[in-house]
Amino acid sequence: MIATKGYAAQNSTDPLAPYNFQRRELRANDVQIEIQYCGVCHSDLHTVRDEWGGTIYPVVPGHEIVGRVTRVGADVKKFKQGQTVGVGCLVGSCMECNNCREGLEQYCDIGWIGTYNGLEEGSSLPTYGGYSNLIIVDEHFVLNIPDKLPIEGVAPLLCAGITTYSPLRHWNVGNGHKVGVIGLGGLGHMAVKFAAAFGAEVTMLSTSLEKEKDAKRLGAHHFALTKDPTTLSKLKNHFDFILDTVSAPHDYDLYLGLLKTNGAMICVGVPPGTTEIDGWNLLANRRSLSGSLIGGLPETQEMLDYCAEHNIVSDVEMIDMASINTAYERMLKGDVKYRFVIDMSTL
Amino acid sequence: MIATKGYAAQNSTDPLAPYNFQRRELRANDVQIEIQYCGVCHSDLHTVRDEWGGTIYPVVPGHEIVGRVTRVGADVKKFKQGQTVGVGCLVGSCMECNNCREGLEQYCDIGWIGTYNGLEEGSSLPTYGGYSNLIIVDEHFVLNIPDKLPIEGVAPLLCAGITTYSPLRHWNVGNGHKVGVIGLGGLGHMAVKFAAAFGAEVTMLSTSLEKEKDAKRLGAHHFALTKDPTTLSKLKNHFDFILDTVSAPHDYDLYLGLLKTNGAMICVGVPPGTTEIDGWNLLANRRSLSGSLIGGLPETQEMLDYCAEHNIVSDVEMIDMASINTAYERMLKGDVKYRFVIDMSTL
Repeated sequence: MIATKGYAAQNSTDPLAPYNFQRRELRANDVQIEIQYCGVCHSDLHTVRDEWGGTIYPVVPGHEIVGRVTRVGADVKKFKQGQTVGVGCLVGSCMECNNCREGLEQYCDIGWIGTYNGLEEGSSLPTYGGYSNLIIVDEHFVLNIPDKLPIEGVAPLLCAGITTYSPLRHWNVGNGHKVGVIGLGGLGHMAVKFAAAFGAEVTMLSTSLEKEKDAKRLGAHHFALTKDPTTLSKLKNHFDFILDTVSAPHDYDLYLGLLKTNGAMICVGVPPGTTEIDGWNLLANRRSLSGSLIGGLPETQEMLDYCAEHNIVSDVEMIDMASINTAYERMLKGDVKYRFVIDMSTL
Repeated sequence: MIATKGYAAQNSTDPLAPYNFQRRELRANDVQIEIQYCGVCHSDLHTVRDEWGGTIYPVVPGHEIVGRVTRVGADVKKFKQGQTVGVGCLVGSCMECNNCREGLEQYCDIGWIGTYNGLEEGSSLPTYGGYSNLIIVDEHFVLNIPDKLPIEGVAPLLCAGITTYSPLRHWNVGNGHKVGVIGLGGLGHMAVKFAAAFGAEVTMLSTSLEKEKDAKRLGAHHFALTKDPTTLSKLKNHFDFILDTVSAPHDYDLYLGLLKTNGAMICVGVPPGTTEIDGWNLLANRRSLSGSLIGGLPETQEMLDYCAEHNIVSDVEMIDMASINTAYERMLKGDVKYRFVIDMSTL
């Protein structure tokens, strides 16, 4: 076992504190990475506070990881020492089911291993995430980070980026499509950038007029204040796709009615509990309510390469490790444009 | 105006009684049809009892109509006197919106005119349906009934048939697909016939073991008792498509979990009020919950021609007009295999 240092939640009430913990030994297919930057995702906060249940304390969060390769196992083929690489939400899956074979590891039939709060393959050791000085990951789950991008802006691509890129690609969103994006946060701001880059006509759907200027700066062509009934009635049967990035409870029916015939509303966030829908909103116009979960490894690499080619990164605010609790509080208020990224040299 | 005779609900409490009412005069594009048979749909009952609200009394229900052409307007091109024809759920739409131009009149942007309980185009006269001796309909909304089919079995194809045919075609269901059908009633028995005819492997999903034998006779390859947790757990991530024909309240999440990656559950019935869903069931496996509403005129004709070619009709129980209230009561108990059809010579 390798002793490493991380910023861990001891339990749901204790203050976060630096913590020494054990990583697995380097295996033949493993890559050891010195972590340079880690994005701060809402999932980190949910897990730290055990809001989804099942948190194994102490937990080291973080699944938007970029860093440098410091060691490679004997059988590693894709990576070498010194290379800049990334790790996203997954560090393991069965590799044998149809989904894994198709590069859809996020839909692994057996269940994938999360970058944190999972269990290391063949071990009772928990997986620890990116609020740490190093991580050891099977090379299949490691991504090449193209040289030309500022790597602190790349970190959030590994969750917020791929989570929005994947459904837009799966549903072939592009020229001629009208796309609505619900919510302008970490996910939403990437959804706007990608949908605009793919050639769609993008409308930011928001409850706050303050978001208009920034939404347009990020690439949105239109802004719609969703609490204004007149605005909404004008958008009835309007969109080919709506990407719903909101995890707080909200009214699905309000948005389903904005889809044109064969339109799909694709959820990438999940409100707690259940959400009510009126089936007539699906039958009318043959609409779909769909979901999409992060992305598989091949598609994540494709996204990183696409971002390098089109100069797309996340808008980030850098923080040091000691500011994480303040950052969580600000995230809860939506006070971040649009992703906190921890500089791991401050750990 | 033409005086005709129909079996009408005077209001929600009065007994149904034969009733003389006014049809519109024959217009240049109209076909006048002597009605021979009319299927009895659950929508008839909902409307007669004003369960959806908005019933205009007296209402003459019935939108699974077959009969003989007795007169045609001066500009009618597709039909001639003596021809056997059908009328389904729609008798009008704007004909100008994108959906109408694509033959998706059921998704008309302006709203289509129902065969009953609507308003005649350009008139304050209500539309009266098929529990009647004649109907006058614009030829665009009239269908040719192929000679080789027994026409009493054709009547239910005009609603129950197209409602299940259309989504199976839209989602390209066929060879290699595993399809679940929820509910074995008027819609469900047609869904089983079509899905099997299209080459899919069909599983009837039912709460009643009594349905197994009949489901298999109709073409289902498998039967699953959905109230048995062991059966359900074996079917997790199993289906490419689930066609949900149930209009009573039921648990969507139970079925969503049975869909494999990219699977779609397509609702053709709508429970009253709203239904709760857990968004995780959509994100997991990138599933969709979709809806589909009857079908457009070109596709309805395509279905009738397909049925003639493949010898598919609805399983019907013939009744006379005076038995309609008993038939409604039996429908509510699920006591019909699988569609009542009224012999209009008994009116």
